[in-house]
Amino acid sequence: MIRLTTRTLGAIDHVAIAVRDADKSIPYYRDVLGLPLVGDEVADQEGVRLVYFDAGNVLVQLVQPVRDDAPVASWLDDHDEGLHHVCFYTDDLVGCAALFNGDKLGSESTFPAGRGGSAFFMITEPNNVKIEVTGKAVL
Amino acid sequence: MIRLTTRTLGAIDHVAIAVRDADKSIPYYRDVLGLPLVGDEVADQEGVRLVYFDAGNVLVQLVQPVRDDAPVASWLDDHDEGLHHVCFYTDDLVGCAALFNGDKLGSESTFPAGRGGSAFFMITEPNNVKIEVTGKAVL
Repeated sequence: MIRLTTRTLGAIDHVAIAVRDADKSIPYYRDVLGLPLVGDEVADQEGVRLVYFDAGNVLVQLVQPVRDDAPVASWLDDHDEGLHHVCFYTDDLVGCAALFNGDKLGSESTFPAGRGGSAFFMITEPNNVKIEVTGKAVL
Repeated sequence: MIRLTTRTLGAIDHVAIAVRDADKSIPYYRDVLGLPLVGDEVADQEGVRLVYFDAGNVLVQLVQPVRDDAPVASWLDDHDEGLHHVCFYTDDLVGCAALFNGDKLGSESTFPAGRGGSAFFMITEPNNVKIEVTGKAVL
């Protein structure tokens, strides 16, 4: 079992919700819950539209597939809409990918993520919880 | 549709994960992810054990049923372990319960929650996301 001697993960960056149609979902989060909408972009490689709301200390992210082959599209087929993953921030994405996923080059499991950064999903999903880690872009 | 003119909800208090056996789950969050364990208690009325980890800006909460009739026990039967809900903090729990659930007395849907506070779950679950709101204890 991996055992950390110092804290490698930072605080939580965002909590993600998988949705089929962000346009239909946005009004509830923005107007009913009152969360400011602070981002709306497409991450091409992952085939998702990412909409961000600022909850004060954490972002709430809507993840909508924009292609049928996007991983979140098949997740939606299996699970329906709902909480999808939790994402931690790190200032050492390469080190984190090596630590948690055994990446030798820090790039095997990382991908271009939202807001100009890179990210990876941990191979291990404790209690079926998908855990993403995001940080500065890995070139 | 409810429309807020001022921000009623505070930041996110915790993200909850439903688990069958917290003792089996604790080591991963504490030792692998490196999150300090900061609370472990039973909320009698809800029939749950609540274990808290400090993720820096937000708490991660494990929710384990301690009675067969606990709502989270039937949720686990239906969904298996996984992300269960997101909880916002408010300094006006009675007002929030009135706003979101139509509670006239602010006590119809509130219950004694973790860390000596009270909470309620919003009746509306956008994209199947359970949203809890917690605040100071409602007497």
